[in-house]
Amino acid sequence: MSRKRLILNGFAMNTVSHVYHGLWRHPDSQQIHFNDLETWVELAQLLERSHFDALFLADVIGIDPSYQGNWDTYLRGAVQVPINDSSTLIAALIGATRDLGLVFTSSILQDHPFNFAHRASTLDHLSKGRVGWNIVTSVSHNAAQNFGFERIVAHDRRYAWAEEYMEVVYKLWEGSWEEDAVRADRRAGIYADPLKVHRIHHQGERYKVAGPHLSQPSPQRTPALFQAGASYAGRAFAARNAEATFIASRHPEGARRLIEDVRGQVRRAGRRADDLLFIQGLSFVVGSSEEEAQCKARELDELLCVDGLAAHISRDLGIDLGLLEPEQPIDELEVEGVQGILRFFEEANPGQRATVADLARAYAGTRLVGSPESIADELERWQDAGIDGVNVIYQTLPGTFREVAEQLIPELQKRGLAQREYAPGTLRERLFPGRPAHLNERHPAAAQRRRG
Amino acid sequence: MSRKRLILNGFAMNTVSHVYHGLWRHPDSQQIHFNDLETWVELAQLLERSHFDALFLADVIGIDPSYQGNWDTYLRGAVQVPINDSSTLIAALIGATRDLGLVFTSSILQDHPFNFAHRASTLDHLSKGRVGWNIVTSVSHNAAQNFGFERIVAHDRRYAWAEEYMEVVYKLWEGSWEEDAVRADRRAGIYADPLKVHRIHHQGERYKVAGPHLSQPSPQRTPALFQAGASYAGRAFAARNAEATFIASRHPEGARRLIEDVRGQVRRAGRRADDLLFIQGLSFVVGSSEEEAQCKARELDELLCVDGLAAHISRDLGIDLGLLEPEQPIDELEVEGVQGILRFFEEANPGQRATVADLARAYAGTRLVGSPESIADELERWQDAGIDGVNVIYQTLPGTFREVAEQLIPELQKRGLAQREYAPGTLRERLFPGRPAHLNERHPAAAQRRRG
Repeated sequence: MSRKRLILNGFAMNTVSHVYHGLWRHPDSQQIHFNDLETWVELAQLLERSHFDALFLADVIGIDPSYQGNWDTYLRGAVQVPINDSSTLIAALIGATRDLGLVFTSSILQDHPFNFAHRASTLDHLSKGRVGWNIVTSVSHNAAQNFGFERIVAHDRRYAWAEEYMEVVYKLWEGSWEEDAVRADRRAGIYADPLKVHRIHHQGERYKVAGPHLSQPSPQRTPALFQAGASYAGRAFAARNAEATFIASRHPEGARRLIEDVRGQVRRAGRRADDLLFIQGLSFVVGSSEEEAQCKARELDELLCVDGLAAHISRDLGIDLGLLEPEQPIDELEVEGVQGILRFFEEANPGQRATVADLARAYAGTRLVGSPESIADELERWQDAGIDGVNVIYQTLPGTFREVAEQLIPELQKRGLAQREYAPGTLRERLFPGRPAHLNERHPAAAQRRRG
Repeated sequence: MSRKRLILNGFAMNTVSHVYHGLWRHPDSQQIHFNDLETWVELAQLLERSHFDALFLADVIGIDPSYQGNWDTYLRGAVQVPINDSSTLIAALIGATRDLGLVFTSSILQDHPFNFAHRASTLDHLSKGRVGWNIVTSVSHNAAQNFGFERIVAHDRRYAWAEEYMEVVYKLWEGSWEEDAVRADRRAGIYADPLKVHRIHHQGERYKVAGPHLSQPSPQRTPALFQAGASYAGRAFAARNAEATFIASRHPEGARRLIEDVRGQVRRAGRRADDLLFIQGLSFVVGSSEEEAQCKARELDELLCVDGLAAHISRDLGIDLGLLEPEQPIDELEVEGVQGILRFFEEANPGQRATVADLARAYAGTRLVGSPESIADELERWQDAGIDGVNVIYQTLPGTFREVAEQLIPELQKRGLAQREYAPGTLRERLFPGRPAHLNERHPAAAQRRRG
C-alpha cells in the first residue's frame, strides 16, 4: 500500500555554518562560497530536479557575545555570521527555478509591516505564487540593539507584537484590493477600479498604517505562512497563524506528543487540525550499507566543532555554556529546551550524566544514518507519529542534499513517500492538495477580507 | 575626433505607467505585464545587449488623493500604482544579467538603516558589485502615513534625517569589517578574525544601532550612490553624498547652469568636481527620417493622457491641478518647479500663456525626435553643456528601448558617444574609469573607515 507523501524542504541559511558547525571545512562543502549566487542556483536546481517542495532559508539579524562572554567562537567558526539577507537571496533564485517553493525568514523587528507586505507581494508576483514566509520574533539582544532597543522585549510581549504585525499585513494582503479591482483594460483605458481599492486605516499599539497596499493582489495574496518557535507562546502563535510549523523533536514519540498538543490548540483557535502542517527537522547520512553510512557519519563527526555547537545553543537558550567546563555534567540546568535534550541523552545512555559537549552534540538535532531502506523505514515511523514533512538539515552543502537526492529520494518515491512531479499551482496549493491558492475561511486573515 | 562616451541608463519603474501616462494602452507596450519577471528579464537583456550601463528603477511608497481631491485618476490610469518594490525586482534580475548595473530606489522612510544596509550588501555580493542605490526621502503624505507619521516631515528636516541615515549605513558598510577580516581558511578552521570586526555604536537623533554589520565586505562595500532631488536641500545632499545625480533640464543651457552651480557645491563639500556625475533624463522617438520620427511622435501623443500627467505633477508639486480648468492659464502659480517649465513653454511659444494641459504635457520631460544623426547631434550639444550621461525615459516599454537600441545606439557608437563593450569591474569602476571599486577618500563615507 502506497503511503501519503512527505513534504520535503531543503533547510539552509545564507551564511557559512548553519547547524553542523565545523563542517564548512569539509572538502564536499561549498559553504564558504555563500556570497556567490552560483552556489545557491546550483542548490536550488538540485532540489528542484528531485522535486523538493521548497528551499527554506532560516535567518538571524544579530550576533551576541554569548559564549565565553565574547563573539570569538561565532566569527572564527562562522556560526551564522557573516550572514546575508534571506529574502534577497530568495528573490535572486526566482528566475533560476520554476516550481520550487522559496521560503524566507523575516523578523517583526527588522522590517516595518507596510514595507514588508509590499516586498512579500512583489516576491509572490515575480514567483507566480511560490513564496513562503517564516515568521520570527528574534531572540537576540544584539538584534534588538541594531534596531534601537536596549534589549529584546520579553517573550510574551514579542508575541503580542507579532499578532499586531500579522493584523497589519493581513489587512494589506487580504483587505485592501478587492478580487476584481484590476481590469487592465487597454481599450477602455482603465487599469484599476478606484472604488475597489481601500485604505486599511490601521491604528494599533505599535503601528499606524493608512494604506492602501501598493501591489495588486498576488497569486497567493498572503504568502504561505511558516513558523518555528517552540516556546509556549510560539506554539500558540503557530496554532492561530501558521500553515506549517517547524519542529525539532528527538524521536517519533516526542513528535507525536507535541503534534497532539498543538493540533488541540489549532482546533481551539477555530481552525481544522489539518490546517497546520508539522515539518520535522532531520539530517541524514545515507550509505549503500549500514556500515558504509556509519563510517561516513564518523568521518563527518571528526570535523564537527563542539565549541561552535555550544556557542549556538548558548545564543538560543540565553545561557553561556562557555563558562562551564566541557566535561562538566549539566543535568542541574533549569532551562526550557535543555531538559528535553538531557532526557533524550539519558534514555540513550543509561547511567551516564550529560556534559556540555554531549548537550552541544545533541543540539544539532536528530540524524538518521543508514541504508536508504532503513532510513525510509525510520521515516515511516516519523510519519506514523504525525509529521507531514521534513526539513532536511545539511551537514555539508550541497553534499548532504546531493546524497539525499541521489540515494534516499528514489527509495522514498518507490514507497510513495516522496513526490515524482510537481502538482500545478502555487506553493499553498501544493502543500494543501485540493485547496485554493488563498488562505481558507478559518484563518484569521480571512476576517480582513471585504465582503462584496 | 571621437568623443567621451555618455553613460546610458534605462529608466523605469516596477509599475504600469511611469512618466508618459496613457501610453500603456499602446500595442507596443508590455507595461500591463509588470508583475511578471519575464517582462523585466527581456528588458534587462535588451539593455545589456546594447551595453547600457544600468537599469535604473525609480520607486514610490504612497499614493495621495492629489488630483481632483481623490485618487481616481491614479488608479484608473495606473499612474505609478499599483507598484511593486524596486529592490526585490533588482535582486530577481541579477542572475539574468552579467554586466548590467542594477540601480534601485529606497526611501529613508521605508527601511531601517540596519536592515537596509544588510539587504544592499546582499545585493552587492550576489551581483558581484553591480548595484546602485537611488537615495530618496519621499514627498508623499500617504507614504508618511503608511509608516506611522501624521504627514511628511518638512523638507529640510527630511534631509537632516537623510544625513543621519547615511552616517549609519556608511558606518556599517565601511567601518564594521576591516579589509582583511575574512580569512576563510578551511585548514586553520578560521573563517573570520574576531578582532577585525567592530560594532558601530551609533547613537543619533533618530537611530541607535549597535552593529556589527552582518555581511562581510561586498565588492563595492557602499553601493554606487545615486540621487534625484532637484530642491535646494536635495542638491546640497547630492553634492555631499551622491556619485551620480539625475537631472531633468529642459534644454542644454539649463543643464549647463544647473551643473555649474552643483559642481561648485561639490567642491565646497571637499570633493572634486568630477566626483559627481550628471545624468539627464531624456526620451526619444527615432525614425529613419525627420518626417517618420515626427509622425511616430504624433501617433504616440494621441494616446498620451493629459489627466494622468496633471495628476503626476500635482502629486510631485503638492498642488491639485485637477481643481483648475484644463484650459486655464496658470502663469500665476508660485510653485518651485513650475516656473522653469512655464519659462520654457513661453520661450517655445512666444505670446502664448501656458494652460494646465500645456504644463502637464511639458512635465513628461524633454523628448528628442528625429533621425539617429539629428538626435546624436543634439546629444552632443547636451554633452557640451556638461552632462555625463542620459537616463532614457520610455514611452512604451520595451518599445522605446528597442528603438533606441536598434536605431540610435549604433550612431552613438560610431561617434564614440556610446560604449561597444563593458569595461571590467564593478558598477563604480565602470562609471569612474581608472578609479577603484570603493568610494574615494574625499567622500564622507571614507571618514567611517578604520585606520589599520
